[in-house]
Amino acid sequence: MELGGNLADAPQDAPRLSRRAAQVRDAALTLWARNSYRGTTMKDLAEAVGLRVPSLYNHIGSKEELLEEIMFSTMNELLEKYDAATTGTSDPAVRLRLGTEAHVLFQSAHQREAFIGNREIVSLPPASRQRLVQLRDDYEDRFRQTIEDGAARGIFHVRSQQLATYAVLGMCNSVAAWFDPGGPLSVEEVAREYGLLSLQLAGYRGETQSRPR
Amino acid sequence: MELGGNLADAPQDAPRLSRRAAQVRDAALTLWARNSYRGTTMKDLAEAVGLRVPSLYNHIGSKEELLEEIMFSTMNELLEKYDAATTGTSDPAVRLRLGTEAHVLFQSAHQREAFIGNREIVSLPPASRQRLVQLRDDYEDRFRQTIEDGAARGIFHVRSQQLATYAVLGMCNSVAAWFDPGGPLSVEEVAREYGLLSLQLAGYRGETQSRPR
Repeated sequence: MELGGNLADAPQDAPRLSRRAAQVRDAALTLWARNSYRGTTMKDLAEAVGLRVPSLYNHIGSKEELLEEIMFSTMNELLEKYDAATTGTSDPAVRLRLGTEAHVLFQSAHQREAFIGNREIVSLPPASRQRLVQLRDDYEDRFRQTIEDGAARGIFHVRSQQLATYAVLGMCNSVAAWFDPGGPLSVEEVAREYGLLSLQLAGYRGETQSRPR
Repeated sequence: MELGGNLADAPQDAPRLSRRAAQVRDAALTLWARNSYRGTTMKDLAEAVGLRVPSLYNHIGSKEELLEEIMFSTMNELLEKYDAATTGTSDPAVRLRLGTEAHVLFQSAHQREAFIGNREIVSLPPASRQRLVQLRDDYEDRFRQTIEDGAARGIFHVRSQQLATYAVLGMCNSVAAWFDPGGPLSVEEVAREYGLLSLQLAGYRGETQSRPR
């Protein structure tokens, strides 16, 4: 697994957009992460990119369509990263560690998307909200199945596999809120340590503190 | 420790307010949790309680003062609950478990306050933002000191005490986002399980899965 991969290839995962449309999308990520989707007007967005509101619509559909595009591309990319990181191994300990690492790498490399993704599901219209919740449930299922599998094999030890799943995901999701790209720890260091912490959380009793990579 | 205590005495912790002022505060919690502080106008707030905007100011100072009151009373209550739960014991394992339980009880009993508290620090004016960040750091220090103490005594095993602290707090904070008061698990059950998960996360190797209470 190439730990730096998420950062290097992130732009390729974004949809192909004109330069101006990409600027609008980028400004929306910044404004929505800071002030929320509902707290940001199209006028705010237009001003952030030096356009007037009518011109904005030359580059995006509606505010709601932009939210949908951001929410679905974020969730789909997270699913792809998880699947790419964990493919080829059925060992629950390895899957939990690599899945956690992939999730943390994503959260720290895409802080605005992660923050918006966690918070703005309620802002989607009902039909797409339902589709997004389904994708999120599919994602959560991967972690839960891994934890259930490890418990069934006797290598994980938790009383509630559901709560352990929420705890691992909560631990990982919070990285988007505190990670500082200019701080002392690289995304790779944080991801690696969280991978080991997820094993401890799941009651894994194999070696985690000095595991060779 | 009386686990149900947080729920039963929560109203006593809120400031003494007139019935109308309490309604306004309650509506602000709901609207800000859903639409964010910046995404909620005073007109939205007035409509939610059946008043006109000028009348609203008979019951509260400014929107910013209401935010400050909510943010500081929430943070101070969290500190008090933590200190009450962990007083009288110096055993890091017991402190981590009881502190985590207190945090989760608070998060699940005060979901709107917790959600707003996590998100709206940036909306405070600079001077009070600095004071609140100091309180939050004081709170985080309690967990970090407990983890450092446990590591020094050889009962916790983590490579980064700082990251383990963030992981425990992230795991706990996320409860406010998913906890369903009408769901299958009580706040006490969730708190107890998270207390045990925090010990596992910290690499505690004593008994956690069948610990008698």
